[in-house]
Amino acid sequence: MLIEMVQDSGIKLIEVGSFVSPKAVPKLAETDEVVKRIKRRDDVEYRALIMNMKGLVRAYECGLKRAKLTVSASESHSLKNANATPLEAMRRLNEIMEYAVSKDITLSGAIATSFGCPFEGRIELEKIIPIIEAYVKMGVKELSLSDTTGMANPRQVYDYCRIARERFPQVEWNLHFHNTRGLGFANVLAGMQAGVCRFDASFAGLGGCPFAPGATGNIATEDILHMCEEMGVETGVDIDKAILTAKKVKEYIGHETGSFILKAGKNSDLCNVV
Amino acid sequence: MLIEMVQDSGIKLIEVGSFVSPKAVPKLAETDEVVKRIKRRDDVEYRALIMNMKGLVRAYECGLKRAKLTVSASESHSLKNANATPLEAMRRLNEIMEYAVSKDITLSGAIATSFGCPFEGRIELEKIIPIIEAYVKMGVKELSLSDTTGMANPRQVYDYCRIARERFPQVEWNLHFHNTRGLGFANVLAGMQAGVCRFDASFAGLGGCPFAPGATGNIATEDILHMCEEMGVETGVDIDKAILTAKKVKEYIGHETGSFILKAGKNSDLCNVV
Repeated sequence: MLIEMVQDSGIKLIEVGSFVSPKAVPKLAETDEVVKRIKRRDDVEYRALIMNMKGLVRAYECGLKRAKLTVSASESHSLKNANATPLEAMRRLNEIMEYAVSKDITLSGAIATSFGCPFEGRIELEKIIPIIEAYVKMGVKELSLSDTTGMANPRQVYDYCRIARERFPQVEWNLHFHNTRGLGFANVLAGMQAGVCRFDASFAGLGGCPFAPGATGNIATEDILHMCEEMGVETGVDIDKAILTAKKVKEYIGHETGSFILKAGKNSDLCNVV
Repeated sequence: MLIEMVQDSGIKLIEVGSFVSPKAVPKLAETDEVVKRIKRRDDVEYRALIMNMKGLVRAYECGLKRAKLTVSASESHSLKNANATPLEAMRRLNEIMEYAVSKDITLSGAIATSFGCPFEGRIELEKIIPIIEAYVKMGVKELSLSDTTGMANPRQVYDYCRIARERFPQVEWNLHFHNTRGLGFANVLAGMQAGVCRFDASFAGLGGCPFAPGATGNIATEDILHMCEEMGVETGVDIDKAILTAKKVKEYIGHETGSFILKAGKNSDLCNVV
C-alpha cells in the first residue's frame, strides 16, 4: 500500500485524505476506507482535512487522533469550497473544537488562499489575522498558511510569516505551497528564512483544488527533500525511498505530474563520462 | 521578427545567439545571419556567446559590439562543450581579449557548470575562483556564474555570490539558472539576497545544452518578470508585451516549454466569480 511506503521513508505526519462531501469531491469519497486500512505505526501521526462537524465526526469514526480544519481567507473561494463565508466558517469553530476535545482529537487549522485568491487577487495579511485569532482563541496550536492556487511570492511569504510568528509566538507554523507560477520552492526558502520548518507536500506532486480554477498539484515531496538535502538541511526522511514511493504514485495515476526529481533525477545521479 | 518584439518589451540586453561550430551545434549555425538582420536600437545591447577566437571573429564580422566568452569549471563538461580543458580555455583568454580590445568589442565572461556538473557533481567555489581571477586579470568587468544543468541550490548560490562579491568587488555579477530540479527561482531569490541583480532568462524558457545530459531550458523571462512584479521589484520591462513575445516563441517552436506563466497566467489574470 502506498501509505506504508510513505511511512517507511521516514515521514512522520501523513495527511491521509479529506472528509468532504462525496458529492462535491467524488475523488475523496473513500477517505474513511483508506484510513481504516492503514497499518498504523506509533511514531507516525495520521490526519485528515475537514471543513465542518460532519467531517470531524467521520474522522473520529475512523479512529483518527488528528484532523486539520480549513477556513478560506477569501469570501468567494470559501463559498465555493466550504459553502460558507469565512465568517460563518469561523462561527462554527467553537462547536467543532468542543467535539474534538471531548473525543481527544487534536485539531490543527489551515487558512486556504492565505496569500492570494483566483477570484479576489492578493489577500492582505489584515484579512487573515482575524482567522488566526479565532483559531488561537479556540485553542489550536498548529496553523498552516496555505497558498491554495500558487499566487504567493517570497517577499510576501517572508513578511507574513515574520509578522505572524511575532504576533502569535505560541503557534507552530506550517506552510503549504503549489508551484503553479514557479515560485513554490522560492516560497519554501522564504518561509525557512522567516523561521518556519513545516511544509506540506505531496508525493509526485499530486493535488489541486476543484473549486479554484487553474490550481495545480502541491509541491512534490521528493523535490523539497532534494532541496533540503542539497542545502544540508536534515529532514529525517530517506530520499531514495521517497523517490521510489513517488514513482509508484506516478505509475498508479498514469500521467505526468509537476515533480522535477522524477524527471531529472537527483544531483547525485551522475552520468558516466564516455 | 521575434527579436524586435523582445526589444519592444523593454529588454536592454539581448543575447542573440552563439558563435559555435555549426557542425557541433547545427541549431545555432545561422547566428551570423540573425545578427545581421536585426533592426538595432541604440538603447539596446546585443551580444553573442563565443568559446574561442573563431567565434569572436564571427561576432566582429557581424558588427557586434559585445560578446560573452564561456569557460567550463568542470573538466569533463569543458572537454565536451569547448573541446578543451578549463586550463587550456583559460590560456587562450589573453589572445582573445587582445583581439576584442583592438576591435572595440566589450567582452564579458561566463563560467559554465559553476555550481555542479552532470559528470563531476558539485563544483566547489575553490574550483571557480582561479577562473574568475583569470577573467579579472584579462580585464573582464562582467561575469556570469552559470548553473548550466540546474544543480545549484539557494544556500550554495547565496554563499558563492556573497564571497565572490566580497573578493571581486569590481566585477558586475550575473547569474544564469535552469529550473531542472525546481530550484531556478529559489536560486534567483538567493542571488538577489546576496546582492546580484542581473539574471539570464529566455522567452518561453527555451534552451538547454547539447553536451550536458538531462539539461532543460533556461528559466523563462516572463516567469522571472512575474516574480519581480509580484515582489515589487522594478524591471523596466513591460510584462504583458513580454508574455505576448513568449507566446509567439512557443507558437514558433510548436511544443510545450518550461514556462509557468504561459500555462497559468499572471496572478492578476483573475477569474470572474460566477
